[in-house]
Amino acid sequence: MSNERVIYLPLGGAGEIGMNAYVYGYGRPGKEKLILVDLGVTFPDMDTSPGVDLILPDISWLVERKDDLEAIFITHAHEDHVGAIGHHYERLEAPIYARAFTADIAVRKLAEHGHPATAVKVVRPWPKMTEAGPFSVGFVPVSHSIPESAGLVIDTPKGRIVHTGDFKIDTDPGVGEPFDHAMWEDLGKDGVLALMCDSTNVFSAHEGRSEATVGPEIEKLIASAKGMVAATTFASNVARVKTLAEAGQRAGRSVCLMGRSMRRMIEAAVETGVLQDFPTTVSPEDAKSLPRESLMLIVTGSQGERRAASAQLANGKYQGIKLKEGDMFLFSSKTIPGNERGVIRIINQFSELGVDVIDDSSGRYHVSGHANRPDIERMHDLIKPQMVVPMHGEHRHLREHAKICDAKGVRGVLVVNGMMMDLTATPPRVAEYVETGRTYLDGSVQVGALDGVVRDRIRMALNGHVTVNIILDEDHEILGDAWCETMGLAETGTSDAPLLDILEEDLSQAMGRSARKLRANDDKLEEELRRVVRQSASGEVGKKPEVTVIISRMS
Amino acid sequence: MSNERVIYLPLGGAGEIGMNAYVYGYGRPGKEKLILVDLGVTFPDMDTSPGVDLILPDISWLVERKDDLEAIFITHAHEDHVGAIGHHYERLEAPIYARAFTADIAVRKLAEHGHPATAVKVVRPWPKMTEAGPFSVGFVPVSHSIPESAGLVIDTPKGRIVHTGDFKIDTDPGVGEPFDHAMWEDLGKDGVLALMCDSTNVFSAHEGRSEATVGPEIEKLIASAKGMVAATTFASNVARVKTLAEAGQRAGRSVCLMGRSMRRMIEAAVETGVLQDFPTTVSPEDAKSLPRESLMLIVTGSQGERRAASAQLANGKYQGIKLKEGDMFLFSSKTIPGNERGVIRIINQFSELGVDVIDDSSGRYHVSGHANRPDIERMHDLIKPQMVVPMHGEHRHLREHAKICDAKGVRGVLVVNGMMMDLTATPPRVAEYVETGRTYLDGSVQVGALDGVVRDRIRMALNGHVTVNIILDEDHEILGDAWCETMGLAETGTSDAPLLDILEEDLSQAMGRSARKLRANDDKLEEELRRVVRQSASGEVGKKPEVTVIISRMS
Repeated sequence: MSNERVIYLPLGGAGEIGMNAYVYGYGRPGKEKLILVDLGVTFPDMDTSPGVDLILPDISWLVERKDDLEAIFITHAHEDHVGAIGHHYERLEAPIYARAFTADIAVRKLAEHGHPATAVKVVRPWPKMTEAGPFSVGFVPVSHSIPESAGLVIDTPKGRIVHTGDFKIDTDPGVGEPFDHAMWEDLGKDGVLALMCDSTNVFSAHEGRSEATVGPEIEKLIASAKGMVAATTFASNVARVKTLAEAGQRAGRSVCLMGRSMRRMIEAAVETGVLQDFPTTVSPEDAKSLPRESLMLIVTGSQGERRAASAQLANGKYQGIKLKEGDMFLFSSKTIPGNERGVIRIINQFSELGVDVIDDSSGRYHVSGHANRPDIERMHDLIKPQMVVPMHGEHRHLREHAKICDAKGVRGVLVVNGMMMDLTATPPRVAEYVETGRTYLDGSVQVGALDGVVRDRIRMALNGHVTVNIILDEDHEILGDAWCETMGLAETGTSDAPLLDILEEDLSQAMGRSARKLRANDDKLEEELRRVVRQSASGEVGKKPEVTVIISRMS
Repeated sequence: MSNERVIYLPLGGAGEIGMNAYVYGYGRPGKEKLILVDLGVTFPDMDTSPGVDLILPDISWLVERKDDLEAIFITHAHEDHVGAIGHHYERLEAPIYARAFTADIAVRKLAEHGHPATAVKVVRPWPKMTEAGPFSVGFVPVSHSIPESAGLVIDTPKGRIVHTGDFKIDTDPGVGEPFDHAMWEDLGKDGVLALMCDSTNVFSAHEGRSEATVGPEIEKLIASAKGMVAATTFASNVARVKTLAEAGQRAGRSVCLMGRSMRRMIEAAVETGVLQDFPTTVSPEDAKSLPRESLMLIVTGSQGERRAASAQLANGKYQGIKLKEGDMFLFSSKTIPGNERGVIRIINQFSELGVDVIDDSSGRYHVSGHANRPDIERMHDLIKPQMVVPMHGEHRHLREHAKICDAKGVRGVLVVNGMMMDLTATPPRVAEYVETGRTYLDGSVQVGALDGVVRDRIRMALNGHVTVNIILDEDHEILGDAWCETMGLAETGTSDAPLLDILEEDLSQAMGRSARKLRANDDKLEEELRRVVRQSASGEVGKKPEVTVIISRMS
């Protein structure tokens, strides 16, 4: 009994902001019973994952131990916490626990993959606890930016873990429960082994502001507008959509929601009863016939996504509605690092249309859903754990968070994806390093990030592609000439002759001087022809393309 | 004589920050004599220009009129102002005028392309004027961040134009001449037709700070450091490199410059005598043997560039030097929008090494080289032009700048690339829209941005590539089976059979049911086989790949 331990193993979310997936285990080493907290996605980009649709955590380790997986707990309904549940459920098949609104979203995601709604169990919040093997887990309401966000109390035979989930300290968060200091303090009163704590905003030095401060500013802004007003925020930031809609209504405008994901999210929130008194909205169809000074659009695409409503409006038109000179577009959002190019492209397009764009540079029209540094420290102080384990952050965030702990005399433990920590060791230590990584949803297929599929696409994007075709007779003599096709390469290079002619000439010469033995060996011949093409293209256009060699043998 | 006019035509730099290239003309409509101000580059990114090495302005319009091009004037030696001179000189062959340091850099760029140094004429600053056809042009020293930056006075028979170039208002800029209010005011005293004015920082509401304020802060920071200190800034920000080196020296450290472009730039500045008293530096070889607390590296790669010194240090090692736990890395720079991912990657890598990264979020360790809004307005007030034409900005910057002018009762004229403005018309009007755009330096070849070369590479990156090979006999019957190769696609899809097998099976079936007439027509057969592959791949892996079809006919 005494060698049973509590382990913590992030498979995603520790060393990145996105695809949260945290495993906890209890039992004898290697025999632990497991639970999973959250199963989210992250988003691809052209630099590292062109053509990829979604990035999922690699859960192979967990799949190998699915018989020991007692349950999955989802803290809240943001994509980086629930987005992979539909894609991965089949391989895990454990019961999923969530509060009602989160469960509603999870069920929709499972349904897209043909899984039954019965997989998801709706739980009531703390102090109600759910038993899962050796664990007893409670959902502690916490303020964030989406309804029914929760932290988790995870009780084990060797002590309590508090997992904050995403949180901010906001006593008037618009949606979801206000932050309840007394309740959180109460969680820690009998001692807490470890606090797993959101690190997103650890570099923000000032106390966070309440969602309630945003509405009046936005209302003033809208009241000052002469033409149509459009505003964007994350579709899943239900609190902000509500703040925007209410501000629009108070400013005397009809509100129209545009973009499928936003309409869906608001529908789910209204249906499950967590979003009450949401202003009446008009359809895009009806909006078209309203005077522009009476209309406010709330639209998707705060991150400059190419197909979202904001990008389409910036391009000229969306669902029959156009913005024009004298209208206003508000980014009630922060641009996530890496998305600047897309956002700036939209701002410039609006500028060309004569639309005035207001962004968050003044700090008035957006507040974060995450705890800033003083609020993170407040959480430490409320829970008073034996150790703090920073999570939900890139390495720089986790390290800074751990340094803050050290400075206060609290043990801060820096754990990144794949580090299995034995939390019951003194001091806590790495029990094992586990292979983790990213799985790409690529079209309808999952591929490993390191499988080479996307690497090959990046190489073609950087270097272009050449197809080489030769036909050999049964004596390994070439029939006709070598034949090339290029894609993504200049048509002519330094010698001013067509690149294709140069490549084909060089290939023919190489074939002419090649040994019969080489020509008899497909692999070696392919390698030689690839080398010739790369050298020839390099001399001619300064690029070494990817090469596909097709050798046909007549017999 | 009376219908002679002054025209202004930006070919680059108006509607973007980068690849500056501004044409001025004087003469009868269509017969104007021309000068070009600046000929810079901009930098590619993976989203829009994968594999591209540099982006140059498309100067076709100017090349068609090269006989009317009297001269090229380069305001300063930053890449976005001088970087294309080597690549484009051959097509223009006009004399190039610049101050000594800028000329030194221009000569190096011409030499890389085999052009003689005699193409570049060194000019002394205002009040010295250079005659170029109907124009008389003076280089007016102005504070920026590189030695010998200049604005231009461009006198025409119909009035004076003042072209600010890149500028800030700094009376202690570190390198280059202090801003001379009286001299600039003097330029405007007899009336100015138009002020072409830098717009880069129009959204920065506060007066800009002097370069001189940065050094003491950096010195304090270095003095607080226990281990090695490394700092990065733009290689071409000679003022900052000097500020950093002097701060390091004052803090008692030996300074080592790392990264070829930075060493070259400083060498050029020292050689031409514009950078005096630069601290003695140690070579990377010698640096290795110094105690780490006595060493300061100044390195390239402030924008996260993958091959620069900063990225290599973050990866583990550069020229034998490693950073480790307890060392400090300073970004004395602003991240240009779009470069965040690369910079953050480096910060996280340093975090993993235990290196403390200091960025500019405090505002203490970097000031911009461009005028903020109050300083831009100050320039308007000094010159008192008949009109202000915002330049050096994206559309949003130009528009904001023009709005500021309107608000003050000064005529602001929004001109973007390709708009030829008749500045002598009342009011100034668009004389013509000229085709402009971007030319990609792709390997060793220039390709048009709209030629489709890069578009095809992007498509391969998003969709993958399939090569189809079939061989037909003289009766248009297939010999053997269709044969495929894929690149950048998953090996297996929804049916769990190899994707190649599925594609080849579907192609064989399509061939089997095809009409002889179709098989006899290469174009139609190719189109049909492409359609089959895309449909088959879409069903199997959810992607529609790019397809190269190779049809061989035996005869």
